[in-house]
Amino acid sequence: MAGGRLVVIGGDAAGMSAAAKARRENPDLQIVAFERSRHTSYSACGLPYLVGKVVETPEELISRTPERFREKYSIDTRIRHEVVDIDVANRRVRVQNLDEGKEFSEPYDQLLIATGARPFCPHLPGAESDGIFGLSTLESGIRVRREVDEKRPRRAVVVGGGYIGLEMAEALIMRGLEVALVQRGPQVMETLDPDMGALVSQALRDVGVDLYLEEFLTGFETENGRVAGVVTDRRTLPADMVVLGMGVRPRTELAKAAGIPLGVREAIKVNERMQAGTNGIWAAGDCAESFHLISRRPVHIALGTIANKQGVVAGTNLGGGNASFPGVVGTAVTKVCKYEVARTGLTERELNELGWDWTSAVIESKTRAGYYPMAGKITVKILAEKGSGRLLGGQIVGIEGAAKRIDVLATALHAGMTVQNIIDLDLSYAPPYSPVWDPVQTAARQVIKNI
Amino acid sequence: MAGGRLVVIGGDAAGMSAAAKARRENPDLQIVAFERSRHTSYSACGLPYLVGKVVETPEELISRTPERFREKYSIDTRIRHEVVDIDVANRRVRVQNLDEGKEFSEPYDQLLIATGARPFCPHLPGAESDGIFGLSTLESGIRVRREVDEKRPRRAVVVGGGYIGLEMAEALIMRGLEVALVQRGPQVMETLDPDMGALVSQALRDVGVDLYLEEFLTGFETENGRVAGVVTDRRTLPADMVVLGMGVRPRTELAKAAGIPLGVREAIKVNERMQAGTNGIWAAGDCAESFHLISRRPVHIALGTIANKQGVVAGTNLGGGNASFPGVVGTAVTKVCKYEVARTGLTERELNELGWDWTSAVIESKTRAGYYPMAGKITVKILAEKGSGRLLGGQIVGIEGAAKRIDVLATALHAGMTVQNIIDLDLSYAPPYSPVWDPVQTAARQVIKNI
Repeated sequence: MAGGRLVVIGGDAAGMSAAAKARRENPDLQIVAFERSRHTSYSACGLPYLVGKVVETPEELISRTPERFREKYSIDTRIRHEVVDIDVANRRVRVQNLDEGKEFSEPYDQLLIATGARPFCPHLPGAESDGIFGLSTLESGIRVRREVDEKRPRRAVVVGGGYIGLEMAEALIMRGLEVALVQRGPQVMETLDPDMGALVSQALRDVGVDLYLEEFLTGFETENGRVAGVVTDRRTLPADMVVLGMGVRPRTELAKAAGIPLGVREAIKVNERMQAGTNGIWAAGDCAESFHLISRRPVHIALGTIANKQGVVAGTNLGGGNASFPGVVGTAVTKVCKYEVARTGLTERELNELGWDWTSAVIESKTRAGYYPMAGKITVKILAEKGSGRLLGGQIVGIEGAAKRIDVLATALHAGMTVQNIIDLDLSYAPPYSPVWDPVQTAARQVIKNI
Repeated sequence: MAGGRLVVIGGDAAGMSAAAKARRENPDLQIVAFERSRHTSYSACGLPYLVGKVVETPEELISRTPERFREKYSIDTRIRHEVVDIDVANRRVRVQNLDEGKEFSEPYDQLLIATGARPFCPHLPGAESDGIFGLSTLESGIRVRREVDEKRPRRAVVVGGGYIGLEMAEALIMRGLEVALVQRGPQVMETLDPDMGALVSQALRDVGVDLYLEEFLTGFETENGRVAGVVTDRRTLPADMVVLGMGVRPRTELAKAAGIPLGVREAIKVNERMQAGTNGIWAAGDCAESFHLISRRPVHIALGTIANKQGVVAGTNLGGGNASFPGVVGTAVTKVCKYEVARTGLTERELNELGWDWTSAVIESKTRAGYYPMAGKITVKILAEKGSGRLLGGQIVGIEGAAKRIDVLATALHAGMTVQNIIDLDLSYAPPYSPVWDPVQTAARQVIKNI
């Protein structure tokens, strides 16, 4: 694969990680990257902080500009260029220059699809009105920031209580808005079990979010083409602006039209090397599947860490190296004001769907030695297999110092550890950082009684 | 082992964890615990914070009092009682009641030795003077606290730059003293490699400690039986008080006199079940050896986490259950004002002594996404085996949020992971907690280039 022509569709985390890595592996490769927006390699995860004015300018979220890719990496990086068709048989893409409106055709030897995901937006009356926002690209984040800066909305409604919903609720609270959050399920954070989700619901109330649980969006009230309210099955909530945090869907229409096989939730099927077929097609990031190492099934999880890892693996292989991406264990973390929320592995619902015989325990502990100042509450839940005691999942809700503890459980999941193995771990202890038994070990000591 | 009589020597972490666990396992066991001091189950690791007035009263450091053990656990807990002889053949101990001066003999079926460790104090001129302190028991911590509260010393000298030395330097700085620290080696924290130790040395200077490296203690200047200065091979440092942080030694004279086999650094040899011989003798905590899972050799590491784990294992077995303590990987963590220091596994020196073929890398990263407020510097070093890429050790120096990341490397060491395995870990990421590649993964990505 020395030399040849690599075309990358999508200029954010996965696409540009891959392009940069391919360049390092192979100086002779021709690399062209097409990006619809004006920006490359920005932190999509940072968008709520741009809105919340924790981050002052959009530029701070950009790790590498198109110019940098051109100059430092010799990657022909073309922003405002949208790939509109893939011709798999002839190894060509048709590209539209969005500023000039012209289309052209570009050949490739290898093609990496890194088109990301888009926020889910239901087809409901009023959904196209001004003042309704989803967060995906840097431009979408800039639009929300500008809305808050310039229109000075007083009341916001966030629809959906997942990561983006929670982080946007925090951002808008920080900007001084009244924030209501509508959630279809009985608790926010449906990637946690309901008992742990209830702690997050309470945390949201504690920071001043008006929570409407077990309600679902039925439409929007509008005035002069602008949103004025969110209509649920039970009420109408007045709104000067609305943020949709109802999850994302892989952006795979292009791949689908080209006949590239799709899998879970219409994400592109990939193998461990990130190949999406036999015709020089590769995929990485939020548009692609991952393999879940605990359920042993393909999943679609749109997260920056995974996108970066997949990008590096794809780039290594595209540059002629040899790398594989073994998979994920479902780790994720978020912050709502002073509260920290983390999860890894499988939840009760997921385990029940798989028909596994599991048990669990929930413990309360402290983030530091009990006598140390600012020792805060941390609740840890561990799920383990009955009989074997193998760790299956973990969830944490607490204050400062709580969330990153999930990494021990994530590492233990990768290693196939039992809860006894976790109890035996030589974890670090000093009074400013932990009780003498780390809370994850206290949880393991509790759950082992039920094995 | 239902019923019978268990005697425990030593009423802190290991001894009382074991006694409480044995009671839970076996309600019929007679349990007697002898403790020389007036206190049981206190946090020895909390003593620097008592001195630093981070913790107000000694009582806050006590997790369970003698009364609680008597009432809740039916453990005949006798403070101010020192065991002065073990008669292994006849399964009896001779005990001195320190308040009444009387001695008596006590029979046992099983004996747990949990006599802890004592601060090393060199036999040097003036070493017995007033104003020179070591930290071990709660009473020793109360003495230092009282010294600072009542005598209002202006200048302190800490001898030794290990955990206790650093934490006491912090405590005395917080109390407004001028603090000098004398360290025999070229850097403080000799449990780190010198390059990482240098960062800690600089951190100490940054918080205002006068550091005297590559100097060793030769004696003390005294005035009227009270310390007035610390004499090194190069100078005399004026001192109103002195804290010795020159490491600890297992307190095993009693065991040695009874013919119980000692190992590394005269710590009691134990098997995985914490048995110290065949005659009903057990040992746990700072007086006992541990097995190092990476070097596969016995080690003596005096830390609260290990003492608690060994105590629970011993107690389970003494109560008739079946537990084992597989070993340690050498994890430890400490804090000096805003700086955090952590280590796990083996250092360069240890690997060289073992004759292993290793490589390493050091990276600088941030504790949070670069654009997130308070993102602070974190330096991570990873040591790995040449060829195989197996993780052998890790060291971290940084600010808030840095230290607990060592737990991922500790867990990976337990699992025998390679640095590629670490790169593949699905660790948690959100901008307030981490860059998209966690710093430990960035270090793994660097070291893999040298494998």
